[in-house]
Amino acid sequence: MMGAVAKPTIGIIGTGAIGGFYGVMLARAGFDVHFLLRSEFSAVTEHGLQVNSAQHGALTLNPVQAYSSAADLPPCDWLLVGAKTTSNADLAPAIIQAAAPNAKVLVLQNGLDVEDSLRECLPDSLHVLGGLCYICVHRESPGVITHQALGAVHIGYHSGPATSEQSRSAISEEGADLFRAAGIDSQPMPNLHQARWQKLVWNIPYNGLSVLLGAGTTPLMADTDSRELIKALMAEVVQGAIACGHQVPQGYAEHLFMMTEKMPDYWPSMYHDFVHKRPLELAAIYARPLAAAKAAGCEMPRIEALFQSLSFIDRRNR
Amino acid sequence: MMGAVAKPTIGIIGTGAIGGFYGVMLARAGFDVHFLLRSEFSAVTEHGLQVNSAQHGALTLNPVQAYSSAADLPPCDWLLVGAKTTSNADLAPAIIQAAAPNAKVLVLQNGLDVEDSLRECLPDSLHVLGGLCYICVHRESPGVITHQALGAVHIGYHSGPATSEQSRSAISEEGADLFRAAGIDSQPMPNLHQARWQKLVWNIPYNGLSVLLGAGTTPLMADTDSRELIKALMAEVVQGAIACGHQVPQGYAEHLFMMTEKMPDYWPSMYHDFVHKRPLELAAIYARPLAAAKAAGCEMPRIEALFQSLSFIDRRNR
Repeated sequence: MMGAVAKPTIGIIGTGAIGGFYGVMLARAGFDVHFLLRSEFSAVTEHGLQVNSAQHGALTLNPVQAYSSAADLPPCDWLLVGAKTTSNADLAPAIIQAAAPNAKVLVLQNGLDVEDSLRECLPDSLHVLGGLCYICVHRESPGVITHQALGAVHIGYHSGPATSEQSRSAISEEGADLFRAAGIDSQPMPNLHQARWQKLVWNIPYNGLSVLLGAGTTPLMADTDSRELIKALMAEVVQGAIACGHQVPQGYAEHLFMMTEKMPDYWPSMYHDFVHKRPLELAAIYARPLAAAKAAGCEMPRIEALFQSLSFIDRRNR
Repeated sequence: MMGAVAKPTIGIIGTGAIGGFYGVMLARAGFDVHFLLRSEFSAVTEHGLQVNSAQHGALTLNPVQAYSSAADLPPCDWLLVGAKTTSNADLAPAIIQAAAPNAKVLVLQNGLDVEDSLRECLPDSLHVLGGLCYICVHRESPGVITHQALGAVHIGYHSGPATSEQSRSAISEEGADLFRAAGIDSQPMPNLHQARWQKLVWNIPYNGLSVLLGAGTTPLMADTDSRELIKALMAEVVQGAIACGHQVPQGYAEHLFMMTEKMPDYWPSMYHDFVHKRPLELAAIYARPLAAAKAAGCEMPRIEALFQSLSFIDRRNR
């Protein structure tokens, strides 16, 4: 638990569906939350942030501590990065401007090694952590977020001043406490890289197929052939993870498969990126895992074919 | 060459792009050609058949010996089947009605074992042959066909009264002579099954990707990722063919790849079927080769993923 220490100041870098949802939840739990916005700044200043949640009801945060420039944020103890992986290189200056000394930067993105490119651009004094979001959430319109289901955030330490296992673990635990204080399921993870591979067991099939087949999870789970394809893609991710030296719990893919069957019809973020003609997160979710597996001697032919198909689609979409 | 024998009577079963093109070419060469039509009967009766060919110019056949019922055709010595493989089971009664005794039924379709289902429904007295069409042709509107490039037909004997290698070969040669007499490149093939596998090296990547990626051959050949995907799919077909005991000439896939680079932008028939919400020819082009290769111990993972994706798309498209 948080104990008697002062509540940390939290900055949200990239107030899309993920940043917006967790930011609103943390602000409503009494945290001092500051939101960096770009295109949606005026809409959020005027109307606030709204989360329409199947679980928590209609939540409104108004007024919002909103900023259009990172230089205007107060020094933040925690920075939650919800922007797309495709813009990570551009985010570092904003993070540095908004960071308190020894701030913790929590990267709430999908994909492999997404912290690496950011790490290279940040001073050594900042902690970098990765957070895996198990949530069905999307941005409905400027400042309006729909939360369909789930919500857990699992947090692991990536790199920074904490060098001992104990201090790294304590910081992950501190991050998890923030979310728990806002009523969100959260756990620290001892091995971030392994956890990212595990999360890919979901993202690799569903993100890509939503774009390729133009379908949300419900029709994908209702058709014999797409079900078999999803299972085969999941099996390849598991093989890739194992080849890279990671453990995947027995029955993990089956668990995600069955969990998805119980979810409401969900369109993964990649589909929304596609529809809005934004770059797809192909490097983080496909190219890096493929390269890592290949370097470990493991071919993932179906994933490679999916990646190549998505690359073609992405290039023509912009 | 044809020699001094009477010119055979030819029936076209399924006057789409393939049947229409070859039928018009044969009729213009002086053959007695009869066309069985369904939905396009009245349009063709009124306006004739038109082929707009990049190679031969604008060709018109008017009047057309057109029929809406197979019972009205005269007894045909050769029957050219250009209808979709998806309707093969329904074609047998029409073929039987239009066939002269000992007629030759030439199946001008893509895919593996497409003659088998037809063969089962035909009397033993009829010869069945398979024809592989190397041609870029599509139906523009009722009775109007666009011919973009190429045109060769390779013919092999499938089954029927001819039992000796010599007589089978003579009948294939007789078929090739028909086409040659109409100015069309044509060769007899000693091994139809092997030739069908070879043709799949083209159809498996291009037919499916045109639907999946919504693109004709030119953009598919212009993008790094789709090029690699096409090469990988071709390599799997070659592996499958070899596993099934067939020879594929060295460099054959590369030859088709380079040939496609030189073609005008071409949308394969499967794309047109998709756009017109007709069933896709997935059994002939994907399911049967996959099953044959698997029975021979050969996995084709990319082709399987493509097939599963197309099956999903096809089911939702109708």
